[in-house]
Amino acid sequence: MLILITYDVNTETAAGRTRLRKVAKQCINYGQRVQNSVFECQMDVAKYRQVKAILEDLIDKEKDSLRFYNLGDKYKSKVEHIGAKPGFDVKETLIF
Amino acid sequence: MLILITYDVNTETAAGRTRLRKVAKQCINYGQRVQNSVFECQMDVAKYRQVKAILEDLIDKEKDSLRFYNLGDKYKSKVEHIGAKPGFDVKETLIF
Repeated sequence: MLILITYDVNTETAAGRTRLRKVAKQCINYGQRVQNSVFECQMDVAKYRQVKAILEDLIDKEKDSLRFYNLGDKYKSKVEHIGAKPGFDVKETLIF
Repeated sequence: MLILITYDVNTETAAGRTRLRKVAKQCINYGQRVQNSVFECQMDVAKYRQVKAILEDLIDKEKDSLRFYNLGDKYKSKVEHIGAKPGFDVKETLIF
């Protein structure tokens, strides 16, 4: 199934910026970055549980948030993209 | 149906920051902000076409991107949230 992961990490502090880097790094391990804080991940239920647990441990739950959307197996017709394609060198602090 | 709208707007220039504000403002008109650049919008096909056209006109397609995910009508079991709840005063340049 396709799991969409989106996150908001509060980067007002150095600790926040470190959390952001860690969250992004983990997400890169699990799927394709389609926007700066949006990842599409092909995974089964076990992997989905795993990534949720890892990311949950990394964030500050008072300040940051994670959202997971299960798009199922037939997701191709459910997704539309307009504009620049991902794959550029994402600058964590400038583009969001 | 529930349409998820996510965007990346390149804010390296003043023009980019203006585009970001305009895109966010439009999205607020159509749905609920769940993260800084993620909106959930309850809409029919006509409204969906409308918001796509409006947002497409606002962005710079070389630099920015929009993604639309159709979560259908039975979306409640497809969404999971961890961490801070939206509703805080979003600072466009600091939190993403």
